[in-house]
Amino acid sequence: MAHNTHVAADTNAPPVTSILAKFVSGHVSKGWTQAVEHEAHRTFYNWLGCAIGAARHEAADAALAAVAMFEPAQQATVLGRSERVDMASAALVNGITSHTFDFDDTHLKTIIHPAGPVASAVLALAEKTGASGRDVIDALVLGIDVACRIGNTMYPDHYDRGWHITGSTGMLGAAAGCARLLKMNEQQTQMALGIAASQPVGFREQFGTMTKPFHPGGAARAGLTSALLAKHGFTASPRALEAPRGFVQVVSDKRAWNEVTDELGERFEISFNTYKPFACGIVIHPSIDACAQLREQGVKPEQVERIELRVHSLVLELTGKKEPKDGLQGKFSVYHGCAVGLIYGHAGEEEFSDAVVTDPKVVALRNKVVATVDDTIAEAAVDATAVLTDGRRVHVRVDHAIGSLERPLSDVQLEGKFNALVVPVLGEAKAREITAACWKLAALPNVRDLTALCRP
Amino acid sequence: MAHNTHVAADTNAPPVTSILAKFVSGHVSKGWTQAVEHEAHRTFYNWLGCAIGAARHEAADAALAAVAMFEPAQQATVLGRSERVDMASAALVNGITSHTFDFDDTHLKTIIHPAGPVASAVLALAEKTGASGRDVIDALVLGIDVACRIGNTMYPDHYDRGWHITGSTGMLGAAAGCARLLKMNEQQTQMALGIAASQPVGFREQFGTMTKPFHPGGAARAGLTSALLAKHGFTASPRALEAPRGFVQVVSDKRAWNEVTDELGERFEISFNTYKPFACGIVIHPSIDACAQLREQGVKPEQVERIELRVHSLVLELTGKKEPKDGLQGKFSVYHGCAVGLIYGHAGEEEFSDAVVTDPKVVALRNKVVATVDDTIAEAAVDATAVLTDGRRVHVRVDHAIGSLERPLSDVQLEGKFNALVVPVLGEAKAREITAACWKLAALPNVRDLTALCRP
Repeated sequence: MAHNTHVAADTNAPPVTSILAKFVSGHVSKGWTQAVEHEAHRTFYNWLGCAIGAARHEAADAALAAVAMFEPAQQATVLGRSERVDMASAALVNGITSHTFDFDDTHLKTIIHPAGPVASAVLALAEKTGASGRDVIDALVLGIDVACRIGNTMYPDHYDRGWHITGSTGMLGAAAGCARLLKMNEQQTQMALGIAASQPVGFREQFGTMTKPFHPGGAARAGLTSALLAKHGFTASPRALEAPRGFVQVVSDKRAWNEVTDELGERFEISFNTYKPFACGIVIHPSIDACAQLREQGVKPEQVERIELRVHSLVLELTGKKEPKDGLQGKFSVYHGCAVGLIYGHAGEEEFSDAVVTDPKVVALRNKVVATVDDTIAEAAVDATAVLTDGRRVHVRVDHAIGSLERPLSDVQLEGKFNALVVPVLGEAKAREITAACWKLAALPNVRDLTALCRP
Repeated sequence: MAHNTHVAADTNAPPVTSILAKFVSGHVSKGWTQAVEHEAHRTFYNWLGCAIGAARHEAADAALAAVAMFEPAQQATVLGRSERVDMASAALVNGITSHTFDFDDTHLKTIIHPAGPVASAVLALAEKTGASGRDVIDALVLGIDVACRIGNTMYPDHYDRGWHITGSTGMLGAAAGCARLLKMNEQQTQMALGIAASQPVGFREQFGTMTKPFHPGGAARAGLTSALLAKHGFTASPRALEAPRGFVQVVSDKRAWNEVTDELGERFEISFNTYKPFACGIVIHPSIDACAQLREQGVKPEQVERIELRVHSLVLELTGKKEPKDGLQGKFSVYHGCAVGLIYGHAGEEEFSDAVVTDPKVVALRNKVVATVDDTIAEAAVDATAVLTDGRRVHVRVDHAIGSLERPLSDVQLEGKFNALVVPVLGEAKAREITAACWKLAALPNVRDLTALCRP
C-alpha cells in the first residue's frame, strides 16, 4: 500500500483546476473578439451538420437501441431523428454521430475534435433548460478552451501513448461548458472539472470501429453528468487535474502547465479550429483539392491520359490503396480522392459511398492516377499535373489545402458542406432554416427553436 | 500524425479480449467448487450491506439529485431507499454507496474492491430483466474474474501510476457480468469488453472525496452500457485490451498476460476476496482486533493504565493521528481504533462517528495507547499488551487480523456486520429477510423478490 508514483511526480504544478474553474465561471459573456465569436458559430454549425448527416448511420441505430433500454424521458433531441431521449443520452448519441463520418472539426495543434464532446453536451443541456443561444455560444467557447488547453498541455506525449485525445480531454470541455451554462460558481465548477477528470474516454486501438465515435459521445455524457453532480454537492479533489496522482500527471509525461495559463482569456483555442471540406483523412485533402482545381481549369475526365501526383511519403503510407473495394477503403485511397475531385469537384460522404467507389467511370479515372513520392514536398502539400490526350499538360501546386488554417473554408463553402450532409436527412427547407438559425445563434432567445428544426 | 507509441509496444500479446469473451460466454453455469459458490454469496451479501448502509449518506443524496435531472424511468432499486431509477443510474448510485464507507470487499492481490462495479451493474440489470439468482451469481463470479485477472495483469504498476484500480478494471468486470446475464454470445461479449475498455474510471488523487466511491459506480454504469451497446450491434476493436494502443498497454507497463490465462476456469479470483470487519483502512485492523481480544480476555477500560502497541512503521505513517477531531480523522488513528476495540469489541461505521470520536471516555482511553515502531513485526501483524492499574500485563499477538484471507470473517460475523449497516436503514425485520434471501440467492427464481426487500 505504500507505492511510489511511476514517473517523476511534478509536485510544483500550478493549481490549474482552480485557475480554469475561475476562468470558466468568471469570464464575461462574449468576452472575445468578433473573429472568435464568428468562429464559434462556424464550429457549432459544422458540428451540427456532421451530427445530422450521420443520423441514420448504423452506429446511431445501435446506440439508440441501447439507450432505449433505459426508457429515457424525452428531454432532448437526437439530431436528425424523431426520437427524443434524456439529455445525457442525447449528449452521448449526438457526440457519436458528429464523429461518425470523421468529418467534424479539428484543432490542428492537438488533433482534438473539440465540438463533439463540448457542443453535444452543451446543446442537450441547453435544450432541457431552455437556454439562450448566447449562453450556448459562451459555453462552447469556454468549454473548447478548457479541452484544448489541457490538450496542449499533454500533446503529443499523451496522444503518442495511445489515448484518443478527443475523448480524453473532451470530458473536461463538456463539464466546463455545462457548468458555465448552469451558471455554476467557481467552487462548483472546480468540482465539476474534478469529477470529469476521473473519466477520460478512449484509446486509439478503437480507430476503425464504432467505439471511435463513441469517445466524443462518452466524453460529452461524462462532462454533462459531472456538472450536474457538482451542482448538487458532489465533491472531487480540487487538484484533480494537476496533482501527482491526478489526471494529467497519470496520463502524460508532458505537462506544459503554461499552456493552461498563457494568454488565458485573451487567446481562445477555438480560433485554431478547422473544418474538413472532404469526408476522409486530412492527408488526402491536398490531392483532392488539386484535382478539383484542375476541374475548375476546364480539365474533363474524358480528356485525361494520366494524372501525375508528387506527394510526401506519408501520403502513400497512409492512403496508398490502389484498388479500393468499398466506401471505407475509398477513404484510404489517394487515387480515389483524385478521381472524385476531378469528376465531382467535391468529396463528401456521398463520394465515399460503395456505389461511387465501384462506379466504372470513377475506377477508370482512378487507374490513370500515378503517384510518386517526393519528400521535398511537405505533408500538407501536393504537386499535380494532368497530362491530356492531346498532349497538353495542366499543372497545379497546392501548398495548403482548402480547409487548412491558412485557407479556411468560407462560410459559403461551409454551407455547401452542411447542405450535402443535411438535405438528404431533413430536406432543403429545414436545412435552410437551420442554417439561418445557426448564423444568428447568439441572438436566439431559446435554443429549442433550433433543435425543433433538427427533427424530421 | 505518424507518432510512435510511448513505451515499448508488446506486439506479441495473446488475444486476451477474445479469450475472456469465450470464457465469459461459454463457461458452464455454476462451473466451480462449492467453496467458490459460497464465496460468491458472501461477496454479494457483504456488498449489499455496504450499499444499503450508506444509502442516506450525503454522497447518495447528491448523486440521486443529479440523476433526478434525467427524469429516469423506475427500472431498478436504489438500495436502501424508496427511489427507483433507470438501471444505468441504479448501477451508478449503488456502486457509489457500496464504496462510500470504504467498508466493501477487497481482492488483496490487487486492492481491487470487485463487487462495487460488478454487482452494482449486474443486480440493476437483473432487476430490470427479472433474472434469476442463479444467473446473478454466475455473472458475479465471471465478472469478478475478468476484473481481477486484468488487475493481476497490471498490478502494481498500474496502481502505482495513480489509477484507482477498482474503477479502472471494474468496467470490464461489469461489462462481462452484464454480457453473461444477457446471455450474449462470444462475439457480442468481445465487443462489450472492447467498448468497456475505452472507459476506465478513476485516479487516486480523488481519495478522500466523493469521487472515490464514484469510481466503482461509474465503472458499473460504463460496463452495463457497454453490454447493451454490444447487444445492439455496436462494434469495438476485437483486441481492445491487448493491442499496443489498447487499454492495458496504454495504462500499464506491467502486462503479465499469463494472469489472464493461468488456470482460467479452474481458479476463480473471487476465492481471494476478503471482507472488512472494521470500517477503516486495513492497516489498523490488527490493532483493533488485538484490543477486541483483550476485551474478550476480560480487560476493562477502567482497569487500563496503558496499552503498549508494537507495530510496523507503515501503521504509524498512515494512521498515526494521535488526537483525531472527527469521524473521518478517527479512521486514520490507530489510537482511536484501539480504544473502540477495547470499549466496544467492534469498529463499524458507528464507532467512527463524530460522537464516538469525541466521547470523553473514548478520548481518555485513546490517550493511554502508546505505539512504538518495530519493523520486525509484519505490516499485517501487531503485538499488544494491556498494562493494568494493578500491575498485571495481558498480552495478545495478532499475526493475521480477523477479515484477512488467513482468518476470514465467519458467516455469522458477516451477518453481524450486515445488521449493523442495514438495521438502522431498513429495520430488523427486513434485514433478517434480506439475509435469508441472500444466503439462498442462487435458488431465487427472480431477484426482484430480493430488491423489493431493499426499499424502506
